[in-house]
Amino acid sequence: MDVNNIKALVFDVFGTVVDWRTSIASEAKQCLSKKGYELDWVLFADSWRAKYQPAMERVRTGGRGFVRLDILHMENLIEVLKDFDIKSVTETELNYLNRAWHRLLPWSDSVPGLLRLKKKFIIGTMSNGNVALMVNMAKNGGLPWDVILGAEPAQAYKPEPKTYLTGVDWLNLKPSEVLMCAAHNADLVAAGAQGLKTAFIARPTEYGPNQKHDFEAEHDFDYISENMLDLADKLGC
Amino acid sequence: MDVNNIKALVFDVFGTVVDWRTSIASEAKQCLSKKGYELDWVLFADSWRAKYQPAMERVRTGGRGFVRLDILHMENLIEVLKDFDIKSVTETELNYLNRAWHRLLPWSDSVPGLLRLKKKFIIGTMSNGNVALMVNMAKNGGLPWDVILGAEPAQAYKPEPKTYLTGVDWLNLKPSEVLMCAAHNADLVAAGAQGLKTAFIARPTEYGPNQKHDFEAEHDFDYISENMLDLADKLGC
Repeated sequence: MDVNNIKALVFDVFGTVVDWRTSIASEAKQCLSKKGYELDWVLFADSWRAKYQPAMERVRTGGRGFVRLDILHMENLIEVLKDFDIKSVTETELNYLNRAWHRLLPWSDSVPGLLRLKKKFIIGTMSNGNVALMVNMAKNGGLPWDVILGAEPAQAYKPEPKTYLTGVDWLNLKPSEVLMCAAHNADLVAAGAQGLKTAFIARPTEYGPNQKHDFEAEHDFDYISENMLDLADKLGC
Repeated sequence: MDVNNIKALVFDVFGTVVDWRTSIASEAKQCLSKKGYELDWVLFADSWRAKYQPAMERVRTGGRGFVRLDILHMENLIEVLKDFDIKSVTETELNYLNRAWHRLLPWSDSVPGLLRLKKKFIIGTMSNGNVALMVNMAKNGGLPWDVILGAEPAQAYKPEPKTYLTGVDWLNLKPSEVLMCAAHNADLVAAGAQGLKTAFIARPTEYGPNQKHDFEAEHDFDYISENMLDLADKLGC
């Protein structure tokens, strides 16, 4: 495909741009170990994250109205603390820990790659994270987004078509002028079904040794890249 | 007031951050003079702009549903071309000229001021301009926004409360943690009525010799500044 037809790049964020697993494990340890808890912090992170898709699925299937991800994260945090039998967490600690998702750190290639891509294209988020989460994460990690798009602006969680298409509409572009970039095959398949172009960015260590899928591109995406710098190379940035 | 309570700054854009009048006059001249038209290009810009508030007022009062500003600008452009008896403008020229609003140039203090403010605060738009317009303008003029908020995200034109409050909600802040910055008294009064803090930025030449109001702050705003650099000084950036 002709790269000159692409006007904007939109990115999945959790896993694709930032390393949620290491960040959450580290933040949970920092917050809870000083209260005397010792546990497998990576398992804690995985357990919190495991409640993410089911919580969104209730919204997607109409079991509840749209609520932003910060709220789902908090509900899931309260559950996971119970699962690990962690008690006596103050409301301040709870809020601080829930906002660990606002402080996730980028993979090392993300910021330099995005800075290169930003020179040639509009770059934006296309995440299920809410706007405040995305903005705070960007400030904290130096992510140079031009625009925050995704679930909260569309009031719909990916992979619902509305999430992608609201972003495309707000950019006043054709779907084929927007390149969806993600480390997850299903996200790209859903975006591609709406006419967006697709770029796979490999993150084979996102789930650590527990990773079961998304080791590599499983479909004929428009671009297949090793990381953000490789994507910049392939797009001539 | 304590500046440490402020978490985000949101800005009116047309007039406050960019000089629409000089930019539109220059773009109209560039586009139409080569077709043989000679006219008062600043008057052309003023005439186009004069149709802006009445067009939004129809949306505000329910005379039509929300449509993005690009569409109102186009309808107004077609009218103003008729008013000036300008004919034989191709569709390509019409689209290019309408997107002159996407290419408005910043006042000279805007980018250096915003870069200073961005180090300490979230900085975002709170404009009646649509998202694509804001994003393209930022790419063209180097405006370093963290987030695009305003009329299109809220589906309501300022000074409707919903415009300001949707932005505050998406940032997950209290209104009192958000500082509305504008060169227009009425915009600040409306934002202040919703609990936002207010900063006046003087732009006494926005309308050239025709300026009739907004020479100075007419209310007791939280900050009153000469330009963006002065605002950065006053906010300790």
